[in-house]
Amino acid sequence: MPDSSSSASARLAAALASLHGQMADRISTASSVREEHSHGEAMNAAFLPEAVIFAESTDDVSAVLSICHDHRVPVVAFGAGTSVEGHVVPPEHAISLDLSRMTDIIQLNAEDLDCRVQAGITRQTLNTEIRASGLFFPVDPGGEATIGGMCATRASGTAAVRYGTMKENVLGLTVVLATGEIIRTGGRVRKSSTGYDLTSLFIGSEGTLGVITEVQLRLHGRPETLSAAVCQFETLDDAILTAMEIIQCGIPINRVELMDSMQMDASIRYSKLEEYQPLTTLFFEFAGASAAVQEQVTATEAVAAANNGLSFAWANTPEERNRLWKARHDAFWAAKAIDPKARVISTDCIVPISRLGELIAGVHQDIEASGLRAPLLGHVGDGNFHTLIITDDTPEGHARAWELDKKIVARALSLDGSCSGEHGVGMGKLDFLETEHGAGTLAVMRALKDTMDPRHILNPGKLLPAGPVYRG
Amino acid sequence: MPDSSSSASARLAAALASLHGQMADRISTASSVREEHSHGEAMNAAFLPEAVIFAESTDDVSAVLSICHDHRVPVVAFGAGTSVEGHVVPPEHAISLDLSRMTDIIQLNAEDLDCRVQAGITRQTLNTEIRASGLFFPVDPGGEATIGGMCATRASGTAAVRYGTMKENVLGLTVVLATGEIIRTGGRVRKSSTGYDLTSLFIGSEGTLGVITEVQLRLHGRPETLSAAVCQFETLDDAILTAMEIIQCGIPINRVELMDSMQMDASIRYSKLEEYQPLTTLFFEFAGASAAVQEQVTATEAVAAANNGLSFAWANTPEERNRLWKARHDAFWAAKAIDPKARVISTDCIVPISRLGELIAGVHQDIEASGLRAPLLGHVGDGNFHTLIITDDTPEGHARAWELDKKIVARALSLDGSCSGEHGVGMGKLDFLETEHGAGTLAVMRALKDTMDPRHILNPGKLLPAGPVYRG
Repeated sequence: MPDSSSSASARLAAALASLHGQMADRISTASSVREEHSHGEAMNAAFLPEAVIFAESTDDVSAVLSICHDHRVPVVAFGAGTSVEGHVVPPEHAISLDLSRMTDIIQLNAEDLDCRVQAGITRQTLNTEIRASGLFFPVDPGGEATIGGMCATRASGTAAVRYGTMKENVLGLTVVLATGEIIRTGGRVRKSSTGYDLTSLFIGSEGTLGVITEVQLRLHGRPETLSAAVCQFETLDDAILTAMEIIQCGIPINRVELMDSMQMDASIRYSKLEEYQPLTTLFFEFAGASAAVQEQVTATEAVAAANNGLSFAWANTPEERNRLWKARHDAFWAAKAIDPKARVISTDCIVPISRLGELIAGVHQDIEASGLRAPLLGHVGDGNFHTLIITDDTPEGHARAWELDKKIVARALSLDGSCSGEHGVGMGKLDFLETEHGAGTLAVMRALKDTMDPRHILNPGKLLPAGPVYRG
Repeated sequence: MPDSSSSASARLAAALASLHGQMADRISTASSVREEHSHGEAMNAAFLPEAVIFAESTDDVSAVLSICHDHRVPVVAFGAGTSVEGHVVPPEHAISLDLSRMTDIIQLNAEDLDCRVQAGITRQTLNTEIRASGLFFPVDPGGEATIGGMCATRASGTAAVRYGTMKENVLGLTVVLATGEIIRTGGRVRKSSTGYDLTSLFIGSEGTLGVITEVQLRLHGRPETLSAAVCQFETLDDAILTAMEIIQCGIPINRVELMDSMQMDASIRYSKLEEYQPLTTLFFEFAGASAAVQEQVTATEAVAAANNGLSFAWANTPEERNRLWKARHDAFWAAKAIDPKARVISTDCIVPISRLGELIAGVHQDIEASGLRAPLLGHVGDGNFHTLIITDDTPEGHARAWELDKKIVARALSLDGSCSGEHGVGMGKLDFLETEHGAGTLAVMRALKDTMDPRHILNPGKLLPAGPVYRG
């Protein structure tokens, strides 16, 4: 046990010596590996992790945390590195704990529509491997994220309007606590009223309360019929009213995605969608039994027509649908192609859907005033959207984008919104949490953090700004 | 501030003196009021609360907790008193804090399908008051429970198979902490990734972490078409297979409820359902747009027919549907009518749906071996069911029922189940938690309790058995 007054670098060295003794074959200190583990898809790193450990089991994760706990060495869990808010950026003298080798499907319970997976499997791999069962996991944040990372950030995406987020689709977890102790939360049942909802506490905790190593997931049957359509609008208001009324009417739509005219223009060029105009556009997907889908389509067309929607363009074959959704998922790259040398920074906020028109109108003014280009797109059925700010890849350029982001978040918060619908807090949203939640609520969150990780070895500096701690 | 070594009764007296100074008109020490607040719908009380305080605002709740915190006096929150696991039973020298006067609908946001209510409103009152909006709150545990109590026990009921439980239908809370501090959790948005999910932590916490005073609820549009049907089966296995295949096929059924032959016999007599046989029975409800409902009906009839279901009996008028669902909700009274002098004790457990047939077959054996009568009914689409154990209202009778309950829970836990699907832990399920969750997981729950309420004034003795506390 080290002297608690020893320096961070001495403690790190002692921890690494101990780790080398136990799992030398799973540790890398190669600079390319360390660089790769120093950042996600946004945020520059101030430090490289001192080592990257490739865990192959829950026991490996437990051993790493136990040693790092003894030596007070920070540990940052790493999955696919698709975070956009700096979740995986290490502090100084830290270790990156990579779970991407933990990709097993531990059990598939097709009769009960659930499965248990290791946290490092990606959602695409999972869906490919269980395809023969007729089931799928619906949460779709776009990127090739790991299930563990999706749990840690409470991810959602285009299908959340129908299937919910990770919160609604995780039944239980295996978690390694700061001390290395392994616990299980939840289970296989659909619902339960037996104690505190620890599963929900770890979902969205961004690696600051424990490291998730296994996940029990709800699965869903592949729908009998899938149908996709595109409808364009002369005005943003008409498109938003259409989305809002679809939700209010209770049409069980599978996806309803918005692109503003600048994003549509970029996507037409990048994804070769030449048959469309650079106008505000809604992408729809309908799913279910065939008569139900037809009924949803008829109702949606009526709502769109009443709000001056242009005619629907249908994508009924799998190829046509894939082309459309690939274009939607490639929106980031389409924005990037507007200026290949620029940096693209994604914002993320959410409001009650009735405030969405007012918010986006204001955001368009902010974008215009900033002099920056920023296409806008979003999961409009949930009230959640992103702007893709295109800016010079320089400190000044980043600062300008950050100023614009701050204005957008402030607008959302003033309209009963939240500063992140799905990307998480990481380091990027720390400054907004007190305004959103209030000081007392943050003090409770800090008390939970101190209880679960009093040595602050688990992803320190993420999710919670420093401040007072609730004492009961 | 009292001397911490002073006796519990001296501390209580000091707290009551202080409370009388602040809210004398809202305090009752009448023995009838104290008796009424000493129990829910099950569990005998060992003690009466020393006083009942009728809070009329969040500030009242805050004042009560602040004073009780200073004086280390236990506080048990009370709503409608419909708990069946002893949640509202006070310990010695405690105060009952009644929230049933807090019944305001604070806001109704029809465009966004949400509302904010005070915790003491019942779900029936809420649904009556918002009827004109075309919206409703779907979670339906049967009894006339308060929304706050439903949050505290993570309630669900017959509609959970379609709409989820309280966990999925609460967007945010106002909570008074042990110290009297008031915080807000969550908000109005549909989803958010900004910090620990405190809303989910308080949902199901049974008044042990804080007292919920306001709730932001998701609402849903009343469906265009509602249709109900009854299908009877010669064997239990056929009925369960039917329910299971409906869920597996992804038929978005609104409700699917099971009654075994003994329960059906009792309900035929009590609710005058003379057109039915005393056979195993499924009650179905279908909801949605009209073609979708027709499609669900056709698919369900096909599944039932393939599993030897007898012909469907339809209830298409509101009167016929109400009669059917009233019979379902009166199942407890139908069981009670089998022997009006007896005590009826409801069990509650849940398993993955594929294990339900094996479990219920075993439970029927246990019931037969016990010599007791125990009709069985349940939310079979979720794998959740209750037996209504009819027993002498004597200590020996209660002990026999408790023995049977223990056997049923042990079977459920051995089949990947949980000891409570929806009634909660209270005092009744304390003995099963370690088997269900494991010692390490309970130690984490205890650490959270100690953090939020280190003086253990909030509903002490409920939800968590005594034991070791996690120290990070």
